[in-house]
Amino acid sequence: MSDLVYFEDVAVGEVHRFGRYPVTAEEVVEYARQFDPQPFHVDDEAARQSMFGGLIASGWHTGAMFIHMLCEHAIPGAATTGALGFDDLRWLKPVRPGDVLGVETTIREKVASRSRRDIGVVKVDSRVLNQNDEAVMTLTSLVLYRRRPLPPAETTGAT
Amino acid sequence: MSDLVYFEDVAVGEVHRFGRYPVTAEEVVEYARQFDPQPFHVDDEAARQSMFGGLIASGWHTGAMFIHMLCEHAIPGAATTGALGFDDLRWLKPVRPGDVLGVETTIREKVASRSRRDIGVVKVDSRVLNQNDEAVMTLTSLVLYRRRPLPPAETTGAT
Repeated sequence: MSDLVYFEDVAVGEVHRFGRYPVTAEEVVEYARQFDPQPFHVDDEAARQSMFGGLIASGWHTGAMFIHMLCEHAIPGAATTGALGFDDLRWLKPVRPGDVLGVETTIREKVASRSRRDIGVVKVDSRVLNQNDEAVMTLTSLVLYRRRPLPPAETTGAT
Repeated sequence: MSDLVYFEDVAVGEVHRFGRYPVTAEEVVEYARQFDPQPFHVDDEAARQSMFGGLIASGWHTGAMFIHMLCEHAIPGAATTGALGFDDLRWLKPVRPGDVLGVETTIREKVASRSRRDIGVVKVDSRVLNQNDEAVMTLTSLVLYRRRPLPPAETTGAT
């Protein structure tokens, strides 16, 4: 009835690469002015004087670009209902205007829910990569997947 | 010379509460349209039909509100140089328009850097709370603090 990817369909070890997010100075500064106005995110000259040697994106902005790529490429075909959160997020390299980001995901583990028979948790290792294939951010997401519904025929034939 | 809070000045167990971030439907939808356009973040009617029963903020938007409160209240007085990342982020309750968020931080641990004598890592447990004092998001940040510089007198008196 549906070609959605359910909990049962996810395979441990599966790897996907997707997304293309060009980072612009305008968006870096706009995001940071609204949410994270540290000098090296909003002020070109101050950024040049800083340890980063130039404007870098807020780490939370990199997270926003990551979820945007997931929304475009990964979430539409998946029977997910959000995420519990994530573990071990690391900002490994600065993200700079001109960079082009992408995502690589690897399914690490599947855990059926003990309290709810209709969902399961899938642990997904994600790497956000720049145009040189360098990881700029890594994290492990705890994604909620719905279980595949039972076919209705099994219950309707009973009486 | 400076009243900045350096690595040496941070005390394990210290608790701070700060910030006041009113969540608006406009900002929830604006953020989500740009970065996380899942139906329950951008579409009032779809959100009402969803398991959340109404519009909720993107979890990454809650993170953005968190860093904004840090930038207003915690980072200006601290000799920090960014963060390595964070561990154990959990979205515990939906964040809805009308909520007013705040932050509670607890210093959990201090780790002097082995490779760099001028910085140390401070592990900070943070809770983002709503107006009912319910934790909506928790995480442990790994914040880089600068070490307190030695007073110049000790070196200038030598020759």
